[in-house]
Amino acid sequence: MQRSGIITITTDFGHKGPFTAVMKGVIYSRFPEAKVIDLAHDIAAQWPPEAGFWVSRAYCYFPPGSVHLAIVDPGVGTERDILIIDYDNHYFVVPDNGLLARMLDRGEGAQVFKLNMACLKPLGIDNPSMNFHGRDIFAPIAAELASGRTTPVAIGTATTDWIPAWLDEPDVSAGKVSGVVITFDSFGNLISNIDADLLQDFKEPVVHVAGHEIAVLDTYGRAKPGDYLALINSFGVLEIARAEGNAAEGLGAERGAPVVVTEGITT
Amino acid sequence: MQRSGIITITTDFGHKGPFTAVMKGVIYSRFPEAKVIDLAHDIAAQWPPEAGFWVSRAYCYFPPGSVHLAIVDPGVGTERDILIIDYDNHYFVVPDNGLLARMLDRGEGAQVFKLNMACLKPLGIDNPSMNFHGRDIFAPIAAELASGRTTPVAIGTATTDWIPAWLDEPDVSAGKVSGVVITFDSFGNLISNIDADLLQDFKEPVVHVAGHEIAVLDTYGRAKPGDYLALINSFGVLEIARAEGNAAEGLGAERGAPVVVTEGITT
Amino acid sequence: MQRSGIITITTDFGHKGPFTAVMKGVIYSRFPEAKVIDLAHDIAAQWPPEAGFWVSRAYCYFPPGSVHLAIVDPGVGTERDILIIDYDNHYFVVPDNGLLARMLDRGEGAQVFKLNMACLKPLGIDNPSMNFHGRDIFAPIAAELASGRTTPVAIGTATTDWIPAWLDEPDVSAGKVSGVVITFDSFGNLISNIDADLLQDFKEPVVHVAGHEIAVLDTYGRAKPGDYLALINSFGVLEIARAEGNAAEGLGAERGAPVVVTEGITT
Repeated sequence: MQRSGIITITTDFGHKGPFTAVMKGVIYSRFPEAKVIDLAHDIAAQWPPEAGFWVSRAYCYFPPGSVHLAIVDPGVGTERDILIIDYDNHYFVVPDNGLLARMLDRGEGAQVFKLNMACLKPLGIDNPSMNFHGRDIFAPIAAELASGRTTPVAIGTATTDWIPAWLDEPDVSAGKVSGVVITFDSFGNLISNIDADLLQDFKEPVVHVAGHEIAVLDTYGRAKPGDYLALINSFGVLEIARAEGNAAEGLGAERGAPVVVTEGITT
Repeated sequence: MQRSGIITITTDFGHKGPFTAVMKGVIYSRFPEAKVIDLAHDIAAQWPPEAGFWVSRAYCYFPPGSVHLAIVDPGVGTERDILIIDYDNHYFVVPDNGLLARMLDRGEGAQVFKLNMACLKPLGIDNPSMNFHGRDIFAPIAAELASGRTTPVAIGTATTDWIPAWLDEPDVSAGKVSGVVITFDSFGNLISNIDADLLQDFKEPVVHVAGHEIAVLDTYGRAKPGDYLALINSFGVLEIARAEGNAAEGLGAERGAPVVVTEGITT
Repeated sequence: MQRSGIITITTDFGHKGPFTAVMKGVIYSRFPEAKVIDLAHDIAAQWPPEAGFWVSRAYCYFPPGSVHLAIVDPGVGTERDILIIDYDNHYFVVPDNGLLARMLDRGEGAQVFKLNMACLKPLGIDNPSMNFHGRDIFAPIAAELASGRTTPVAIGTATTDWIPAWLDEPDVSAGKVSGVVITFDSFGNLISNIDADLLQDFKEPVVHVAGHEIAVLDTYGRAKPGDYLALINSFGVLEIARAEGNAAEGLGAERGAPVVVTEGITT
């Protein structure tokens, strides 16, 4: 695989403190030509599904040969494995905690490796801390992969066995799809795990969320100020918005809240 | 125009999710030598004047030949135009919603173009989404401009007709200037749209805001802790601060709040 | 000193407005090959000790020859000096307000210079604003140092006299160490100024904070959900966490709160 030099970082570290910055320092120390891009750091603390959702939906906008780190890692310091994934001409390095399991379940041709901890020392990774593998393991591994100095197969053991996803796939039955809110954006738009293709046979889909019934439109500007609307967003999933308002606040819906789509208004 | 390779991004996307990151991915995919800099993302949602204020005050600190994207775009997906502006040796790409109208009104020599949507396909911009033009149109256009592979005139139609600014210029009369709070910073300093030169003939200017009368000093350190002060800030506009405190919280003043400057204390 | 081209920026500017961005613009205008990295911007406003803590703990993860700016600067515009420090193969540029005094007190071999303001003009730094030295002085100085075009000795006057640290070192007596909370992270983990080596002779250290007595474990995953725990974190200092919870909220402890470690549970 040709390398782009790009490394993206997704974490639940938020923006306090130098945690992401020192990961960049480690990467640039090993690979000065790297280009490190923050993907998202406001992921819900300790909730891998949101990180996996965004990484699996966003990676394809980066050049082939990029490396994507995602670190939502409640098990840091315990015996959990680290996965290195070669998929669709991108590399991914994540804790084995279900974070990217959904992508692996769907993705044909993904090659998955468990990082062999015995390979750390030959790469100059000595005495990683117990509590910050992002800096001490993920960052140097990303630098080595992005520079082309190592490969997943050289430092990992092929596996078909990984921790499953924390959330079920949406439930699909005749005329009904049931999913959940998986994340929201700064506008308060609620983003579900329901893919557009699950809804393609719905003639008049109606979205049920937090006690409301909401019609599906094609863009935000089509709704009257204050009205709720649903749409297929730019990442190909169902989203609930409020025109010139904040749907998350208005509906009081959190991550994990049920989102059900039916055919036509129920009364 | 010689290009610096720098692209700045200003949005109201906040910091949740990978929205800015995927714009960077699109840019680096097209132009690996780009240097993308986040200008500001905590702009008030859907309020173009704040974005325009900061872009027009900040661009000059970047090298000539930089490209500045500003995306506060309540009309995304509707028929609104996209402006490409060539001004003062910088390029700007913004929705035509008044965002940079103030700069265009003031700026002599600005050349303004409406993006010709028929030019997208030849640039490889196919099927942009309806709801994320930042990623699907603005980012690739910025990459093409920053790389020097295209120019505003090649992809736009010259115009002198754009959506006007949402806010009036400050009202100036004898011994009195009336403006508004246009933004505030993380310290809670209130930043007005009143330029220093409007006040140059005031001998003892007094600032009236949120029921307070505040004297103008030259720097924060000249006030006693807890006191309000006004000053001409480092971007050349009138600012209201509170020494070792938070003026926005203390005064309860929001964006759009009136700021009036008179000569001498009124009693 | 060989230069890495890396410049890190630590401020209390938060994320509103283009304040950090225009510093980057100034740096790239002078030194296009620079690589600017945000270290931390959510430092408590006007509280230099937190900035100094993070810079002194984080710089070593960057390549030798990097330049570290830290701007928490309540005295901007007054007569305070600017320090340029050459230490451990890194450069630091900070206001002389105690920000890095702790590192200087401890660090053997640090060479400290006061920036000679007469050197600004020959470097093309004309008429800096009174209120944004980050943009008008620190950024261009960093660019000149990072590019290798100048050195601390060329633009500064050697000194052994600087403003002392705002916080005392932890108080150490037989079987007892008393420090404070100096910062916290996005998970609500409380980070103290108590170094691991102060505790190395404690057999069963117990941490007293906000009326709680907390045992020291080796990693987060070892505690039961909801339990408080203390550990030596990845930056080598004592930290108080709550398993699957937020210690800062649970304990109501702020920056500066006392943290005392004793031997064994007191009852």
